[in-house]
Amino acid sequence: MVDSVFMAELSWPEFAAKVKEGVIVFLPLGATEQHGPHMAMNVDVVLPTAVCERVARNVGGIVAPPVPYGYKSQPRSGGGEGFPGTTSLDAHTFSLVVRDVIRSLGHDGVRNLVVVIGHFENAWPSVEGVHLALRELRRDGIDDMQVMRLEYWDFVGRDTLDTLFPDGFPGTDLEHASLLETSLMLLLRPELVDMSKVPTDGPARFPTYDRYPVPEGFVPASGVLARAQGASAEKGRLLLDDHVARITKAVASEFGRPETGV
Amino acid sequence: MVDSVFMAELSWPEFAAKVKEGVIVFLPLGATEQHGPHMAMNVDVVLPTAVCERVARNVGGIVAPPVPYGYKSQPRSGGGEGFPGTTSLDAHTFSLVVRDVIRSLGHDGVRNLVVVIGHFENAWPSVEGVHLALRELRRDGIDDMQVMRLEYWDFVGRDTLDTLFPDGFPGTDLEHASLLETSLMLLLRPELVDMSKVPTDGPARFPTYDRYPVPEGFVPASGVLARAQGASAEKGRLLLDDHVARITKAVASEFGRPETGV
Amino acid sequence: MVDSVFMAELSWPEFAAKVKEGVIVFLPLGATEQHGPHMAMNVDVVLPTAVCERVARNVGGIVAPPVPYGYKSQPRSGGGEGFPGTTSLDAHTFSLVVRDVIRSLGHDGVRNLVVVIGHFENAWPSVEGVHLALRELRRDGIDDMQVMRLEYWDFVGRDTLDTLFPDGFPGTDLEHASLLETSLMLLLRPELVDMSKVPTDGPARFPTYDRYPVPEGFVPASGVLARAQGASAEKGRLLLDDHVARITKAVASEFGRPETGV
Amino acid sequence: MVDSVFMAELSWPEFAAKVKEGVIVFLPLGATEQHGPHMAMNVDVVLPTAVCERVARNVGGIVAPPVPYGYKSQPRSGGGEGFPGTTSLDAHTFSLVVRDVIRSLGHDGVRNLVVVIGHFENAWPSVEGVHLALRELRRDGIDDMQVMRLEYWDFVGRDTLDTLFPDGFPGTDLEHASLLETSLMLLLRPELVDMSKVPTDGPARFPTYDRYPVPEGFVPASGVLARAQGASAEKGRLLLDDHVARITKAVASEFGRPETGV
Amino acid sequence: MVDSVFMAELSWPEFAAKVKEGVIVFLPLGATEQHGPHMAMNVDVVLPTAVCERVARNVGGIVAPPVPYGYKSQPRSGGGEGFPGTTSLDAHTFSLVVRDVIRSLGHDGVRNLVVVIGHFENAWPSVEGVHLALRELRRDGIDDMQVMRLEYWDFVGRDTLDTLFPDGFPGTDLEHASLLETSLMLLLRPELVDMSKVPTDGPARFPTYDRYPVPEGFVPASGVLARAQGASAEKGRLLLDDHVARITKAVASEFGRPETGV
Amino acid sequence: MVDSVFMAELSWPEFAAKVKEGVIVFLPLGATEQHGPHMAMNVDVVLPTAVCERVARNVGGIVAPPVPYGYKSQPRSGGGEGFPGTTSLDAHTFSLVVRDVIRSLGHDGVRNLVVVIGHFENAWPSVEGVHLALRELRRDGIDDMQVMRLEYWDFVGRDTLDTLFPDGFPGTDLEHASLLETSLMLLLRPELVDMSKVPTDGPARFPTYDRYPVPEGFVPASGVLARAQGASAEKGRLLLDDHVARITKAVASEFGRPETGV
Repeated sequence: MVDSVFMAELSWPEFAAKVKEGVIVFLPLGATEQHGPHMAMNVDVVLPTAVCERVARNVGGIVAPPVPYGYKSQPRSGGGEGFPGTTSLDAHTFSLVVRDVIRSLGHDGVRNLVVVIGHFENAWPSVEGVHLALRELRRDGIDDMQVMRLEYWDFVGRDTLDTLFPDGFPGTDLEHASLLETSLMLLLRPELVDMSKVPTDGPARFPTYDRYPVPEGFVPASGVLARAQGASAEKGRLLLDDHVARITKAVASEFGRPETGV
Repeated sequence: MVDSVFMAELSWPEFAAKVKEGVIVFLPLGATEQHGPHMAMNVDVVLPTAVCERVARNVGGIVAPPVPYGYKSQPRSGGGEGFPGTTSLDAHTFSLVVRDVIRSLGHDGVRNLVVVIGHFENAWPSVEGVHLALRELRRDGIDDMQVMRLEYWDFVGRDTLDTLFPDGFPGTDLEHASLLETSLMLLLRPELVDMSKVPTDGPARFPTYDRYPVPEGFVPASGVLARAQGASAEKGRLLLDDHVARITKAVASEFGRPETGV
Repeated sequence: MVDSVFMAELSWPEFAAKVKEGVIVFLPLGATEQHGPHMAMNVDVVLPTAVCERVARNVGGIVAPPVPYGYKSQPRSGGGEGFPGTTSLDAHTFSLVVRDVIRSLGHDGVRNLVVVIGHFENAWPSVEGVHLALRELRRDGIDDMQVMRLEYWDFVGRDTLDTLFPDGFPGTDLEHASLLETSLMLLLRPELVDMSKVPTDGPARFPTYDRYPVPEGFVPASGVLARAQGASAEKGRLLLDDHVARITKAVASEFGRPETGV
Repeated sequence: MVDSVFMAELSWPEFAAKVKEGVIVFLPLGATEQHGPHMAMNVDVVLPTAVCERVARNVGGIVAPPVPYGYKSQPRSGGGEGFPGTTSLDAHTFSLVVRDVIRSLGHDGVRNLVVVIGHFENAWPSVEGVHLALRELRRDGIDDMQVMRLEYWDFVGRDTLDTLFPDGFPGTDLEHASLLETSLMLLLRPELVDMSKVPTDGPARFPTYDRYPVPEGFVPASGVLARAQGASAEKGRLLLDDHVARITKAVASEFGRPETGV
Repeated sequence: MVDSVFMAELSWPEFAAKVKEGVIVFLPLGATEQHGPHMAMNVDVVLPTAVCERVARNVGGIVAPPVPYGYKSQPRSGGGEGFPGTTSLDAHTFSLVVRDVIRSLGHDGVRNLVVVIGHFENAWPSVEGVHLALRELRRDGIDDMQVMRLEYWDFVGRDTLDTLFPDGFPGTDLEHASLLETSLMLLLRPELVDMSKVPTDGPARFPTYDRYPVPEGFVPASGVLARAQGASAEKGRLLLDDHVARITKAVASEFGRPETGV
Repeated sequence: MVDSVFMAELSWPEFAAKVKEGVIVFLPLGATEQHGPHMAMNVDVVLPTAVCERVARNVGGIVAPPVPYGYKSQPRSGGGEGFPGTTSLDAHTFSLVVRDVIRSLGHDGVRNLVVVIGHFENAWPSVEGVHLALRELRRDGIDDMQVMRLEYWDFVGRDTLDTLFPDGFPGTDLEHASLLETSLMLLLRPELVDMSKVPTDGPARFPTYDRYPVPEGFVPASGVLARAQGASAEKGRLLLDDHVARITKAVASEFGRPETGV
């Protein structure tokens, strides 16, 4: 059998052995969400899973099955639920999923967990899910589970951004289906990107508030919030390496592990 | 971009176009669950997804992202939650996930859905999820969504079973990590099976009732409930072909489609 | 006051005294559901309660009030919710009822519980209810409650079935409002059966999948899934005796009690 | 088959026929709760069911299966959850049960419903259950269901109370397991009352507030809050007749029916 | 900074110091509800908060922020949800709010809590909220929190009522927006009362049951259930003094504190 | 009676009249949360309410009662739940409160609503609450409610920030109990600020991830995340004016109202 970095590819005794050794488990929280006319809808699963896979190799960890359905897309960060294909969970549902998975891992003996957000809107419901899980685990007599929770895109250096955006980084908020995600997908799953379909109707110009129901024209018709032009696999490589190195460093440091793979 | 049978690999306009044409969407409901010392824990995701993929090709459908965490494993059907690695959701959580995904698909315009169970314990909470989704969709003014819900292993001919079990089919109940699932995995993901580790402590001899807490020795220590000896990729091929042909036939018939791929 | 086998007919000090002695409590989980034009709708309450009453006498136990509303009837096992009179709970509601009753009994000191299913669809939500109750009781410091959970109809010998079905037992699945249940009702509550109204539109011929919304004609119009012709009180007696003897044996064995009444 | 006043004793076509004629359905909401050392724990089921049965006969109605588990007993009205045998539901659970049953009846075509409280603590969670059911039914397109909700003990004349309590009626609040309930049980189920065990430790002297956790001595050790001495079947008859006549009158008036049986 | 009796006006170290000394925390549970054409809709917040403030000063306690939205108004006690401006929570929501606030206070170290109801309909859902909070706190290892729960209007002497109602007190039930509440508001927030708008369409004459949907004319059109004529600040003073003195006495006694301020 | 800008100070007919005229309702969502040793814990209620009050006057709107308990404080934005006095709701509870209040307002006829966040952590659960409310209102036949949702602190000009932070604005993230909030409190409730207690242990230096349980020293012991030194009422005035002017402009524009008060 493969000695896989993916938890789901292990047999249960293999998993049990790793847990006994204190393995770090990575849990990617993704989404099925429109990412423009030029990319597939699995971007928020592919990217955090790829990051987790690489970091896990570096620190001797394993990657739990990514949650493929995320919290509801919001107009100002992901285009909103109006786009066909964006398939989402209510916040309560999503938080319960996170709670149940973490609680179950905790009962299995996992004590070191890294929750990795791949979809902007998952951030807060995942916080709640972690809270609920740790609260229940404490009631079950388990109070020594250590959890990190992070958005992978926050792990990037100023220099990397300066290289990628010579005219200035427009900010994370609009980076939906735009240069960063597109570059990473060109690197990781190029067959799921069609640069000829990159739209030109962005960038979005959002006000500093939400509007419900979402008014006509509030979101670019393409679903791309910033600009994807200029994306390339090379940029994706630069970005991915930075993400992986920085997250590896943080995880290794927090859990007292060597960064074997870096 | 690939013209994929997987919904998550489509761009949203590609998905929208298929929905407009009345595409049949397949939703595999899997689990992360121990499947003996000789197999990976993703059996209940791999198998229904493989079935869905093939049936979807036959009827021009697409496969939504499989739900990778299932309802809690039960001792008499999957060994129970006591095995490390079995990572599960409460029934309410699982039903809400099914409800939310179907509701979201319904709002996207999907009108033909096949829910495919890959994990025995998902059966009933998925029934509830479908009920809740259709109830809510009706309240949202959508009352023409058609849903089939099936366990893929029920689609098998007597002749196939007779061939696979010359000494008589022991029944679906104990077929956890046993000959059928192992054969299918040998066909589909042979690198995730290690036949040298097939245990010999089965088959389980369960009483006709549940016991909580699960008594010592109630479940075979290996987690394999029947027997996996004699599994082979050839048997997996026979089985898979039967599953796919029969489900294709049923789906095509129910939704009035030609069985183009069979 | 009567020295009743029914918990609800005891005064609280009588109940407290029995609990102190380690009484086994039986909890029947029934339903209010159509059972054909020839029977009353309380079949799924009457039958498990009768079984529990007799087994409880045998092992010195008591019977808690039966839950009279069950989980939603399904087309392939009970005709579905479309029949007037079938009055049901959502899965979450039903599981919470089971959780709360068991938790409350646990706090009263009950340590030996037998949950007896009288309605097919209650099986899985009752599993969840038991799980939730034991989880909460553990958090409340009570970890020694022992629970059996069973469907009474599973406790029957091959010889009994052969006697009742000389042409072969069609299987439990379709035994809704059919020969077994009708025979038991003829024995126990003959005034609630009218054999002249036994329908002839069965047996149902279901596919191996669910369909929602339920198509016209999917379920026999009568609500009887197999055949009730030939039912008799004598057959009911044979069946009931078998159920009671076998369940008595299992319960006595599991809880280390003599089978005083058998 | 019997032409029963109890819904559960009807076949589904009999029920359907009654519904088509606009039958009034009575839903008793009971409890399993201590009622002193001299009475069984089913008082709150027996009494409202008996009232419903008689009123239903008077107005041509039927009685749905009583809910046998109620909302948690409170110290100042029922002694509290500390008494063994008191077996209760959380408020949310209880309200969901009421919601589901009423919603299910509404979908069956029932348009005239009388919810009858037999357990003081059920009052408010039943209000919520009715609200939730009618809200959902409206969303399902059913907006013409008429519901009455009442506590049966409120239907009594001043003259009856003066006869029963020549020294003055102490008020409903403490009438738990006391003269009124005991008299009614002596009339209806005398075998479940043992007047020799009527305690003398009451009446309770509660402050005008709740205390949690319940302090030692807050509730009379017997669980009887007022006094049961002097209870008799004759008093029960007087009381029951008054309840039945007054509720019949109210129901008949509200639903525009003749009081055929009075 | 002010040495405030209001918790929200303290800094966290000031609060922490008081908690360490065993401070009694008062939690007013109010509502936003119609109170007739002559009064503002904050009556059920203003009155319990004023009572809490005064009692807290007497016993050295502090007042937590009042919950400003209550459980749904009922026709027979508050006019019902049909009045514009009555803005309410479902029972489950309200109970969760009470649970969460108490649980959070318990984790902060608060051990003496007085929950003060200012809105009739909050009574039962607050009972549930207290139950849920104490249950969870026990699971978190905190079992020494003492809670009183009271309706402020129950703390009044017969002599006070005789003075206020020379013709006899009509009972608490109809005292919505009527003489008592109006007098208290005239004392505390006279600018929010306009006696010229006191309606004359009351008192309500309710039957002894609820009706849903609420029939036309069931509730006085003004929303005032009894009579507000004759209300005065003097009467309010008499009433408030009685409430405060009696609650102070009860709280001081229960928590073993001197009544310093009385 | 006062012609108040606060909804709770209106009588119901006054409120009904305003609703009929299409009044804009502002709903502040606050918290009870530590804000350093130098400020009271009601900052997140006082500030958004003050903003709402002023904007409401400008556009002829009214302010609904602020929700005083918010979603759980997070270490990196508010110091976390570990500080005594921080008293919070679970996400599900908070979202249900927002849902219920908006649904109730919608049924009252309110069609123009502005949800104003005063506590960083309320952002996402309020999004969910708005979603749930609008979903339910649509099912109730109300589909024309317009909602804006905003964080008041996002409405500030670059010039204002440059004036307040001559050395550069450190960003919103750490602005908890720091210069901005302190200045606003000095303007609005100076008696609740004690500048002599402004701590010097900040600013916090957070990593780009969460850690659970929160490690020792992760959060500054004072609870102040950035710096409050230099706060002044003058700065508060500048800031408040900017907030009010910009929000007024946005609201007036979105709802097509004149900015009468600006």
